[in-house]
Amino acid sequence: MTHDVAFLDALSLDGRVETDRETLEAYSHDESPHPPSLPDAVVHAASTDDVSAVLAACEERGVPVTPRSGGSSIEGNPIPTAGGVLLDTFPMDDVEVHAADRLAIAEPGVVYDDLNDVLAEYGLRFAPGIAAGDRATVGGMVANDASGLNAVKYGVTGDHVRRLTVVLADGRVLRFGRDVAKSASGYRLKDLLVGSEGTLGVVTEVALSLEPVPKTRRAALAAFPTRGAAGEAVAHVMASRLTPGAIEYLDADAVALLNETNDAGLPEAPHVLVELHGTTDAGVETDLDVVRDACTDAECESFETASETEIDRLWAARRDVYPAACDYREDATVAFIGDVVVPVSRYPEIVERAAALADDLGIAAPCVGHAGDGNLHFLPIADLDDEDEFGRAMELNDRMVRAAIEMGGTSTGEHGVGVGKREFMREEHDGAVDVMRDLKETLDPAGILNPGKVLPEE
Amino acid sequence: MTHDVAFLDALSLDGRVETDRETLEAYSHDESPHPPSLPDAVVHAASTDDVSAVLAACEERGVPVTPRSGGSSIEGNPIPTAGGVLLDTFPMDDVEVHAADRLAIAEPGVVYDDLNDVLAEYGLRFAPGIAAGDRATVGGMVANDASGLNAVKYGVTGDHVRRLTVVLADGRVLRFGRDVAKSASGYRLKDLLVGSEGTLGVVTEVALSLEPVPKTRRAALAAFPTRGAAGEAVAHVMASRLTPGAIEYLDADAVALLNETNDAGLPEAPHVLVELHGTTDAGVETDLDVVRDACTDAECESFETASETEIDRLWAARRDVYPAACDYREDATVAFIGDVVVPVSRYPEIVERAAALADDLGIAAPCVGHAGDGNLHFLPIADLDDEDEFGRAMELNDRMVRAAIEMGGTSTGEHGVGVGKREFMREEHDGAVDVMRDLKETLDPAGILNPGKVLPEE
Repeated sequence: MTHDVAFLDALSLDGRVETDRETLEAYSHDESPHPPSLPDAVVHAASTDDVSAVLAACEERGVPVTPRSGGSSIEGNPIPTAGGVLLDTFPMDDVEVHAADRLAIAEPGVVYDDLNDVLAEYGLRFAPGIAAGDRATVGGMVANDASGLNAVKYGVTGDHVRRLTVVLADGRVLRFGRDVAKSASGYRLKDLLVGSEGTLGVVTEVALSLEPVPKTRRAALAAFPTRGAAGEAVAHVMASRLTPGAIEYLDADAVALLNETNDAGLPEAPHVLVELHGTTDAGVETDLDVVRDACTDAECESFETASETEIDRLWAARRDVYPAACDYREDATVAFIGDVVVPVSRYPEIVERAAALADDLGIAAPCVGHAGDGNLHFLPIADLDDEDEFGRAMELNDRMVRAAIEMGGTSTGEHGVGVGKREFMREEHDGAVDVMRDLKETLDPAGILNPGKVLPEE
Repeated sequence: MTHDVAFLDALSLDGRVETDRETLEAYSHDESPHPPSLPDAVVHAASTDDVSAVLAACEERGVPVTPRSGGSSIEGNPIPTAGGVLLDTFPMDDVEVHAADRLAIAEPGVVYDDLNDVLAEYGLRFAPGIAAGDRATVGGMVANDASGLNAVKYGVTGDHVRRLTVVLADGRVLRFGRDVAKSASGYRLKDLLVGSEGTLGVVTEVALSLEPVPKTRRAALAAFPTRGAAGEAVAHVMASRLTPGAIEYLDADAVALLNETNDAGLPEAPHVLVELHGTTDAGVETDLDVVRDACTDAECESFETASETEIDRLWAARRDVYPAACDYREDATVAFIGDVVVPVSRYPEIVERAAALADDLGIAAPCVGHAGDGNLHFLPIADLDDEDEFGRAMELNDRMVRAAIEMGGTSTGEHGVGVGKREFMREEHDGAVDVMRDLKETLDPAGILNPGKVLPEE
């Protein structure tokens, strides 16, 4: 579907408008395998006023607008499936730090790691701990309610949002929330925008709550005889009176990949990696004992601790699992990154289920996950050009999502719905989907904002 | 305004319907001085089905429904100002604990302290730390997004809500959210309902995230030469890499009340009370040093530490400030509890402003506050029958709220909007109020749910 976007030239924007083929192609996809789709124009917004002018003009004409910042999403969230305008907020990347208020005011194009580099000077950080921090932006994180390694202790992106500046579909610029630690004043509109993936409004500024950088960190790495035993260790830790800074699950396949790329020399068995944050060495040592007991109770085969410097090496290795999985087989790659959440008490069950289903479908699928939140990622390896194999990988996704929903879980913990999880929305949320649709119609009556995302087709 | 409620008799409810004068009067007010208003009937709901049946029948007839659970609110939030049905969810008080998932499923009538008594057996707690915990209910806390002493570390009620069962105005029963630690699936409807004070739907079940009970607690109590110095100490603590479990401000008047009722023998000067939570004694001792430094930097005149047993005595004394203030003068009482929030960096300014404005108006107004969140409560003493004095107390509220909003703060940190803060909504939220109104019309088109609350009159 193409749209006439000549009207953009008449807007006096601070940012550039591009319509050349190369640019349109560059903005036709995210990092997912979901089919690309060309926009008719890319607008590089330089200001909230730009965003407002573009939205008002597009709404008047019924031209779709797909907002995007970093484009590192993996559910097709910013693919302009209906064409129209791709509204790029990546150029908006100002940061203001109010250290005394533990507050940062960031524009949507600010990259997570860059923000934390700035904040480190103040002993502060924005704490969800996203894995793609080198390219994920504040705008995308708010849009998808993203999170990662450290959410188990510090919460997800939405838990950190104090106030948003939002441009509505009709161009109105509004502030949702206040730049304070808490408020019981009126509806929590900011929280409705968080995770709405640009379908209800475009966020142009975010006031974020910050956490102090932990004074002391220590880690433990334990190997287990079975996936279920590793899952049990996770459940034991979370049932203790301890909240780790991070607690990751890696199955034997993931550990094998880690060994390959990092010469880690680990036993090829399921592992649990725990990071502890505290104010004193003595405190984290005590916590380490709790973790050791939990792992021993789950019959771990090894238990090693890591110092502050070793921890960063471990996480760097953990981050290499994904690229290594992409190279797992010469003729194949990671078809997509699965992302489900279950109650943590059922983590042992979901990790076993993942393996059984993958086996059943004849698909290799290394698993990792932010286990303390009950979050499991599976990385099915497939030849994308092999329709049968790719189909089986997709079937694994279907079955895993349905298994997670059946266990009381959710179809996506971190990546959002995008185009990839739409079909599961009704199954997961039942009648609440109708309410979502009503709210969408209220805030975007012309339906121009990121159409074809989040809400299922009727 | 009276409504014909005879139709209620035809509904087959599990709970009772009452229309006798005594009952109507008992449910005509909350704990605030806002004018009472009689409902036409009180329905004591015994189940979600009851709530659904009542709402469907009332919507059909355009009869207002005001939900209420504990009735301990102090902004008139559950006063049935438009008459109709007072829907009492207090009888619904089941609790289910899933300790391994750090999850409690509670009905709206569960009292905060009772819930925490049950949870203590599992080493867990629901952590916002509300002051009126002996009568505040889960339903009311969700409706007002309530919080208290411990929100500075653990967040407000909304931060703990994983899933709500909600009955919409038309009687539909829906689940918003999932019983897991996190989900990026669809709009965060649960967060829209939190703090909506029964104007968007009636909550009949809440899945709450729990925190481990802290292993070690220690407290410090410091006296300061001026209010501003005490405020500086708070700002210093919050600018350190430490997040206290609680950090309270008390001005000299509040301390005098505390001395009177508790023989506390404290110097009649502004105080800051800090509670620290940790996993080891050594850890909290280190944190205590940070607090001592912050207080010394702010030129404290005394600094004393308290053990675990002494802490509870201190908090009990702190809770006595309000009843003592009510008896401050024989012919007067606390006119209302003021509740504003500012950025914590401006806490020194707001505490001085409170004193100056009260002086200016010739009103005594002891101040306390959950200072780490920038939250200040002021307790103006007035003879409620003395129009002039009560008027000056209300004027103090006006000026304080406007001062807080001007400093970037909010008109209410904990108590909600109710009828008391409606007039400030436009000033605080500007155009976002129109969006709130649009959402209200979408979810409650007949306008039956708690009319006359939250949204300002046009």
